[in-house]
Amino acid sequence: MKVEFTAAQIAALLGGKVEGDPEAKVWGVARIEDGASGMLSFLANPKYIPYIYNTLSSVVLVNDDFEPSEPVKTTMIRVKNAYEAFAQLLATYQEYTSNKVGISENAYISPDAEYGDNCYIGDFAFVGERVRIGKNVKIYPQCYIGDDVVIDDNTVIYAGVKLYAMTHIGKNCIIHAGAVLGADGFGFVPQPDGTYKKIPQIGNVLVGDNVEIGANTTIDRSTMESTKIHDGVKLDNLIQIAHNVEVGENTAMAAQVGISGSTHVGKNCIIAGQVGISGHLSIADRTTIGPQAGLTKGVREPGKSIIGSPAYDYVKFMKDVVRQRNIDKLEEKVAELEKKLEELLSK
Amino acid sequence: MKVEFTAAQIAALLGGKVEGDPEAKVWGVARIEDGASGMLSFLANPKYIPYIYNTLSSVVLVNDDFEPSEPVKTTMIRVKNAYEAFAQLLATYQEYTSNKVGISENAYISPDAEYGDNCYIGDFAFVGERVRIGKNVKIYPQCYIGDDVVIDDNTVIYAGVKLYAMTHIGKNCIIHAGAVLGADGFGFVPQPDGTYKKIPQIGNVLVGDNVEIGANTTIDRSTMESTKIHDGVKLDNLIQIAHNVEVGENTAMAAQVGISGSTHVGKNCIIAGQVGISGHLSIADRTTIGPQAGLTKGVREPGKSIIGSPAYDYVKFMKDVVRQRNIDKLEEKVAELEKKLEELLSK
Amino acid sequence: MKVEFTAAQIAALLGGKVEGDPEAKVWGVARIEDGASGMLSFLANPKYIPYIYNTLSSVVLVNDDFEPSEPVKTTMIRVKNAYEAFAQLLATYQEYTSNKVGISENAYISPDAEYGDNCYIGDFAFVGERVRIGKNVKIYPQCYIGDDVVIDDNTVIYAGVKLYAMTHIGKNCIIHAGAVLGADGFGFVPQPDGTYKKIPQIGNVLVGDNVEIGANTTIDRSTMESTKIHDGVKLDNLIQIAHNVEVGENTAMAAQVGISGSTHVGKNCIIAGQVGISGHLSIADRTTIGPQAGLTKGVREPGKSIIGSPAYDYVKFMKDVVRQRNIDKLEEKVAELEKKLEELLSK
Repeated sequence: MKVEFTAAQIAALLGGKVEGDPEAKVWGVARIEDGASGMLSFLANPKYIPYIYNTLSSVVLVNDDFEPSEPVKTTMIRVKNAYEAFAQLLATYQEYTSNKVGISENAYISPDAEYGDNCYIGDFAFVGERVRIGKNVKIYPQCYIGDDVVIDDNTVIYAGVKLYAMTHIGKNCIIHAGAVLGADGFGFVPQPDGTYKKIPQIGNVLVGDNVEIGANTTIDRSTMESTKIHDGVKLDNLIQIAHNVEVGENTAMAAQVGISGSTHVGKNCIIAGQVGISGHLSIADRTTIGPQAGLTKGVREPGKSIIGSPAYDYVKFMKDVVRQRNIDKLEEKVAELEKKLEELLSK
Repeated sequence: MKVEFTAAQIAALLGGKVEGDPEAKVWGVARIEDGASGMLSFLANPKYIPYIYNTLSSVVLVNDDFEPSEPVKTTMIRVKNAYEAFAQLLATYQEYTSNKVGISENAYISPDAEYGDNCYIGDFAFVGERVRIGKNVKIYPQCYIGDDVVIDDNTVIYAGVKLYAMTHIGKNCIIHAGAVLGADGFGFVPQPDGTYKKIPQIGNVLVGDNVEIGANTTIDRSTMESTKIHDGVKLDNLIQIAHNVEVGENTAMAAQVGISGSTHVGKNCIIAGQVGISGHLSIADRTTIGPQAGLTKGVREPGKSIIGSPAYDYVKFMKDVVRQRNIDKLEEKVAELEKKLEELLSK
Repeated sequence: MKVEFTAAQIAALLGGKVEGDPEAKVWGVARIEDGASGMLSFLANPKYIPYIYNTLSSVVLVNDDFEPSEPVKTTMIRVKNAYEAFAQLLATYQEYTSNKVGISENAYISPDAEYGDNCYIGDFAFVGERVRIGKNVKIYPQCYIGDDVVIDDNTVIYAGVKLYAMTHIGKNCIIHAGAVLGADGFGFVPQPDGTYKKIPQIGNVLVGDNVEIGANTTIDRSTMESTKIHDGVKLDNLIQIAHNVEVGENTAMAAQVGISGSTHVGKNCIIAGQVGISGHLSIADRTTIGPQAGLTKGVREPGKSIIGSPAYDYVKFMKDVVRQRNIDKLEEKVAELEKKLEELLSK
């Protein structure tokens, strides 16, 4: 962020009003308490007011109604809502800097691949045979787009994503760096001598529209047909989705969740971090699954909350945990009963 | 899959018989219930019979003995086993399209690296000094093959795999995208001031023959000597194998398993998803470990099944879980006993 | 390791004394029990003494005071401490071979990026706009260094690491292959129709000095401001650090740990493998967290040990586990009591 902006330029952009030096220059951002020359900060939370009198930041966004009780040395820009204006400014800057367009000369694109208007294909990206890429798609450096892959409009694929052959990605998706889609499902037939024979994995991965997939997450191709991630699904980092899995619309999963083969997860489910779900299960819509839960049975009734390993009702689990951790007291009670009864019987 | 085939061509390939238009063209595959023009489908399961009368697929593989009860509009190809023929067709297509050969001009290969006949080294792959690569090896784009790495015949290394210096890979292995072999083991000596001093990790990773390693799995180099993955081992995605670990022949691990440093896992073990095993343990041959188990002790006797965290006997665990979740009833019984005894004593 | 060394050369390097053929050549290392021609081995542990009389290794390092009880056929080099000398030799070799310097012609470096003296930037690495790289920095092949990234002196970034825009890395850090820093935090606002609206993630990731980050670990950028990894932190492989997390100095985490959004982890904590920590918690300094623990509450008092899911006191947990697994015996005792009391009452 070495591009510099003046307080006057920022004020114009935000519809704010400068108090101080309109020529004060900033090229980066910092918390008001960590300020430095050339930095832009904001003051929204009243508990940070004391910092504004000594901040080294060159410009600070403040709320319209801020009334300093001491002289302010830095340049202020008054805006309606300092926090929102700051966020808006960063989002604008981010959008501006990330608005990559153009096909790098350092990318390899197969002669029979197609792409639409306004695309970005970065350095050292590989685009295989018969690939079809829509318009406004961004493919960052070092991505691997295998043969016969389809990527629809406005999708962003960050650096180093690997899409195996025949993967389909919908519109408006975001796939973060290092994600791998379409690797072989984990399917083997045990042989009499203890070795395993590989089952060919000849299906693919289908991803709907408006899906976000986290960094280093893996989604395996199906044995036949497709592993399906439906519209609006949000997957965090380091998640494992096995072959033949289907994830329903708008289901969200936190990091490090693992879904085993052929399991169907319903729509609008919320799955917390490090949950594991066994294979060939069906999870009803709107199921909420607590952190580190392990599902060995499906969930039939929609809208339930479960947790534990093996998982069951959330409320019962929470009560049972307390009881189980009071088992020493229960043991004591039983010992006391035994003693009393023994005394009674020995009379 | 824009390459088109006619029904007649497919029938010839499969030894089947066309009923309908032998010139009907297909360029992709779909489930019979999701059919579309240009698609090839199959009908095997009787419950899908109703779909064949209205499918939009251009060609459908059916079993020899299929007798339609209504007129069929699409073109059928009769084969002995429609499911197997369909799978065979896809496997053939996949093999055909994945039979990459040739050394990309966009790869970097050290002048003193060697490779055998019939290899594929893809775009933007890096092959370091003194690397030895056997014949029929496929190295997909963007792989990193560090100095002194050895890769034996017929091994496939998918896009973006990173092999640190001195890693050895056997014959007929498959390593999926994003896997990292040979990164430093996690070894540090705590210092009196609370910081850590790194222990140099100067060993390597040895992988035997017929091993499959999943996407984004990590296997660390040993402190000295070798981390060893023996012949026939199958590792799913996102697994962590720490330094100095040894995994015995034909052991299979599901996704997100973590094995800590210096642990030896026996042969023909089956380890379910998200299992964690502490360091410096020895796990006997043919051990079965249930999902999310946590092992803090080794397993001496071969052929046992364990689960739980900390892990113990599988059958006992399953019974204990039921008992532990009935602890409320046990508490009630004890309360009842206390009440009765109190009444008895107060008489 | 095809470069050959003679016994005399190695002895000179180690200040040792050759017994046998000073021209004996080695080009690799092996355990003494696995020896082969051309290999260098060492003998330190007395229980391996029997192997030295028949080892096929060409040269063996032995301790000064080793007195063979039979004739030794191989060439020995006597040194003060054979184990340390062997480790030293490997470390020297590793340092020698890994001392990469120079800017590859196959890398893409933005015209306005800067880097210091003595750097290595490998093939197919991408260095974005306004990036600032210190001196002695090594960036291995296929790394992605996004716009406005800062990397300080002596840091090593292994193959295929992805640093999103605005990430800052301190001095003397090591980042292993496949790690992703700065991907978007997992932040969405649920909409009335069940879909999610993305919250822009406009912060960054700040990494201090002397930090090591494992292979395929992911650290997300903050929503605003910075996700912070402080000086001396050591992260193993496949760890997830969510947005707005702060990890205190010298905290070490084993593989597959997940830390949810906005949690602050104190200094000098030790976190075992597969631990999960919920969001918005504060973990006191010097907390030790056992494997697979799940934290749903913060830890206020420094220096405590906890485990379990949900986590609590380590010692209490260990006792409770034993009690909970004896619940069958407790049930039997209660049944016995019921029977006795029934008998008593029926008299």
